[in-house]
Amino acid sequence: MSHAPTRALERRHGVIRQACVERSLDALIVTSLPNILYLTNFTGSSAIVVLTRDRLHFITDSRYVTAMESSRGSAHACPAFELVVVDGSYDATLAGVLGSMPAARIGFEAAHLTVGRFDWLHRTLGEGPEAPILVAAEGVVEAARIQKDAYELDTLRTAAAMLSSVVPGAIEEVRRGRREREIALAIDWRIRTAGFTKTAFDTIVASGPNAALPHAHPGGRIISENDLVVLDFGGVYDSYCVDLTRTVSVGRAAPRAREVYEAVRSAHDRAIEAVRPGADRFAVDAAARDELTRRGLGEAFGHGTGHGLGIEVHEDPRISRRRADDPAGTPLTAGMVFTIEPGAYLPGWGGVRIEDDVVVTEDGVDVLTTAATDFIEI
Amino acid sequence: MSHAPTRALERRHGVIRQACVERSLDALIVTSLPNILYLTNFTGSSAIVVLTRDRLHFITDSRYVTAMESSRGSAHACPAFELVVVDGSYDATLAGVLGSMPAARIGFEAAHLTVGRFDWLHRTLGEGPEAPILVAAEGVVEAARIQKDAYELDTLRTAAAMLSSVVPGAIEEVRRGRREREIALAIDWRIRTAGFTKTAFDTIVASGPNAALPHAHPGGRIISENDLVVLDFGGVYDSYCVDLTRTVSVGRAAPRAREVYEAVRSAHDRAIEAVRPGADRFAVDAAARDELTRRGLGEAFGHGTGHGLGIEVHEDPRISRRRADDPAGTPLTAGMVFTIEPGAYLPGWGGVRIEDDVVVTEDGVDVLTTAATDFIEI
Repeated sequence: MSHAPTRALERRHGVIRQACVERSLDALIVTSLPNILYLTNFTGSSAIVVLTRDRLHFITDSRYVTAMESSRGSAHACPAFELVVVDGSYDATLAGVLGSMPAARIGFEAAHLTVGRFDWLHRTLGEGPEAPILVAAEGVVEAARIQKDAYELDTLRTAAAMLSSVVPGAIEEVRRGRREREIALAIDWRIRTAGFTKTAFDTIVASGPNAALPHAHPGGRIISENDLVVLDFGGVYDSYCVDLTRTVSVGRAAPRAREVYEAVRSAHDRAIEAVRPGADRFAVDAAARDELTRRGLGEAFGHGTGHGLGIEVHEDPRISRRRADDPAGTPLTAGMVFTIEPGAYLPGWGGVRIEDDVVVTEDGVDVLTTAATDFIEI
Repeated sequence: MSHAPTRALERRHGVIRQACVERSLDALIVTSLPNILYLTNFTGSSAIVVLTRDRLHFITDSRYVTAMESSRGSAHACPAFELVVVDGSYDATLAGVLGSMPAARIGFEAAHLTVGRFDWLHRTLGEGPEAPILVAAEGVVEAARIQKDAYELDTLRTAAAMLSSVVPGAIEEVRRGRREREIALAIDWRIRTAGFTKTAFDTIVASGPNAALPHAHPGGRIISENDLVVLDFGGVYDSYCVDLTRTVSVGRAAPRAREVYEAVRSAHDRAIEAVRPGADRFAVDAAARDELTRRGLGEAFGHGTGHGLGIEVHEDPRISRRRADDPAGTPLTAGMVFTIEPGAYLPGWGGVRIEDDVVVTEDGVDVLTTAATDFIEI
């Protein structure tokens, strides 16, 4: 179980119920596990929530019954939940819960429910005048999650400080003669001993030409003189994810390496300067991208500038290239937390990425990760 | 990238194409990442495959282009793939690929495609006489994956032997005065240094009363005299997952602890004896369950007896309780690989689970994990 205070969960339920009222929904079926965690503190691997105007039906299987029951009465208990133990299958149990409700219009998470499950549920509930109507609802819980509450900001601040404290040690692990995968293992150990539950994703240690692959898997390559080495790692602390990247040079860097590094660092700084309430998310991306383009590296930066952080390591808002189908973009608001991680990748040569985690404040931005971004030659 | 030989991938494509012919499909959209890995060796986090009668369209974004291009010509290259780089969004790119095809009936993975993506795709492709018909197809690739090929069996055998070699060290980590989470970290280190890419799931170290929770998260509880401690851990080796559980006693066990242990061990042995080609999967579950019931522990065993192993740590076949909607169950066939993991959980008291990985052979069963199941008092 996670540790959002019961009062925070109550507030979240209120927000979702309000969103349901606005959509004329009598209930919302929540099948996305991160969304379930957000509403209930549940950290297991299987559950379904049905949130109605006055209840929360929590469907799970025998493996999690004891954990849920023993959470009752704690300071982090999910408010007023009704536990339903799976009988047969999750889908059949869900159909039973829905069938016993007076609800007429029931929303479901169209971005998470699969066509197969939807078809089964739709068939099973039938189409008579008594049968509930299933309504596709997208992003109801995600819309709440995009702005972190006080509990979440505290947790993310603590996590980001912890991750920053791992950086000097992580850089120390980069030594000539060592393999990428050995360095990744040593970094993972440092992440765990710093207090994280686990790593937030598979740690990236990409050296020399491998650094040109933004999502390289650490392998058998041996670190050698003149490599640039990208270290990208993250941790999960009490269910919340943080993420950080630094790039170091092994030995004295060639002028080109320094030049690419400074271009990426400058893009990183420009993007952070562009973050403030009301700014649009694409403008933040453009700030980084334009700076790289100005320095001749626009083509070398293929991915987006950042992604939201929270219960998931990749969530909204996406700090990405302006999209033709959404030219205005969502404006940023205080409480949004995301990464800023421009990079430059030159196939055959190598690459650089620098990543920090930021929060939009009432009047600007706070950088949550505090490790220096100076060019380091080891 | 993973390492199935090109010839194995070719065979797999042939099997899927045959399944498409049987369903009168001109193409199949594959959106499940484990299914994509199975067909292409791709291990990244975003891609879509469209398999037609004579091509494989591989849609991915800029992050993975270099990795895919450089795999061409290797012994593990995906046969005859056409690389399509995402322009705008994955869905828009997919719609473009589908729109440019002569295909009339295109299958999609109903168990993976969400209602939201389906609705968008359906709308975008239109409904004119020229528009392709999208057909829900469930389990096409999964049906192939359920029986492992020679390459997969080799990989799983190696992985299971590696995991077995971790067991003595993992048990050594259980010491009085240590916290569960410290033990979990030490076990994870051993898994990684044994040669696994990563752990297959969050390692479980559940001691004393926590052992009554089948999926406990290791926490701050300190190991003490007379605890039973459940250790459940797994590793991913070259994209394939193995999984193993042992339960040890701290100090001399009370008679009840020994009794519960022997009941679970006996259920584990009975289940393995029931595995052979032609046996039905529910009968294997019943062999374990009946043995526990006979010993008065039927109620204490809430979960299924096992799950398939492969690219995913939980896949088909499910070795679970007989279901009313599928009374016969899928018969087991040679090449299926799954866990056998009965347990007994007594709230407030503790629990026992013993888990091994087995493969169905031509004439019976092979236990892939080789660590002893003798009762250990440390």
